Amino acid sequence: MRVLGIDPGSRVAGFGVIDVAGQNRHYVASGCIKTPTNGTLPERVKALLDGVAQVVATYQPDIAAVEIVFVNVNPQSTLLLGQARGALIAGLVTANLPIAEYTALQVKQAVVGNGHADKDQVGHMVQRLLRLSGMPQADAADALAVALTHAQHQGGVARQLGSGLTIRRGRLG
Amino acid sequence: MRVLGIDPGSRVAGFGVIDVAGQNRHYVASGCIKTPTNGTLPERVKALLDGVAQVVATYQPDIAAVEIVFVNVNPQSTLLLGQARGALIAGLVTANLPIAEYTALQVKQAVVGNGHADKDQVGHMVQRLLRLSGMPQADAADALAVALTHAQHQGGVARQLGSGLTIRRGRLG
Repeated sequence: MRVLGIDPGSRVAGFGVIDVAGQNRHYVASGCIKTPTNGTLPERVKALLDGVAQVVATYQPDIAAVEIVFVNVNPQSTLLLGQARGALIAGLVTANLPIAEYTALQVKQAVVGNGHADKDQVGHMVQRLLRLSGMPQADAADALAVALTHAQHQGGVARQLGSGLTIRRGRLG
Repeated sequence: MRVLGIDPGSRVAGFGVIDVAGQNRHYVASGCIKTPTNGTLPERVKALLDGVAQVVATYQPDIAAVEIVFVNVNPQSTLLLGQARGALIAGLVTANLPIAEYTALQVKQAVVGNGHADKDQVGHMVQRLLRLSGMPQADAADALAVALTHAQHQGGVARQLGSGLTIRRGRLG
């Protein structure tokens, strides 16, 4: 299973692609989708849509995992972040990808094992779990962390379904 | 010129289509794009994208005008509204429509002549300017008001360009 993780941002969106096979996770690619600094909202939306389309076409993921953002700095930046997130999800929907969503708390718990971990700890664990020689840039590291979170949850779900099916076999068969 | 006005909302987006010919404005259509009440964000984004695509395909507008929203009720509703607005603009960008944006103040000034007008006054003036026999529903009325605002601003720009060309004719000819 190939997972595309997305870390939404109003100016820059991080992306990270990993392959998941059982308990193994392999790094495929990561990077950023940048929007024009002084662009209008439609121009920035277009940059995000085009960026998502290009990443999906290049890496052909099976599913996308997107971080559920929540900022409270000020209403205007919250609105900008929401607009960017809506555009990114529109790009993923247009590409017909299934989409899973995870909170920052879920990401930190999955990757570091501590919901109160800081960004450095998340980056460090991403580097370690994917055996990377260097630290990816911050947005890309966060996106890879979201992808790793989906891999872990998916594994959990698959195992649950597996044992559920085993238990129910007598009744289902 | 056919203008599609959009009033973004996190649950329901209003749309209104008008034809503009000189100082004449003709009502074409209006309505709402509804999102599934208990839908996930990707499901709601898909409903907004599909709705915009259907409206554009049906009415073939030349340009879209979208209200610049700003709510401060709470950060969570601001984020939801931003996401919906990003998805709607993504739909318009995907349809290759040029997009103009207007603040609520600009809409009220253009339609009522008073930036502090209330919703009822806006609805009343929309009904009057478009010679409608009945009052459109609130979301649709707001969307028609945004379309009317674009018609007025566009008229202003066209007149300015026109007089500019007249003045420059000697040099350009």
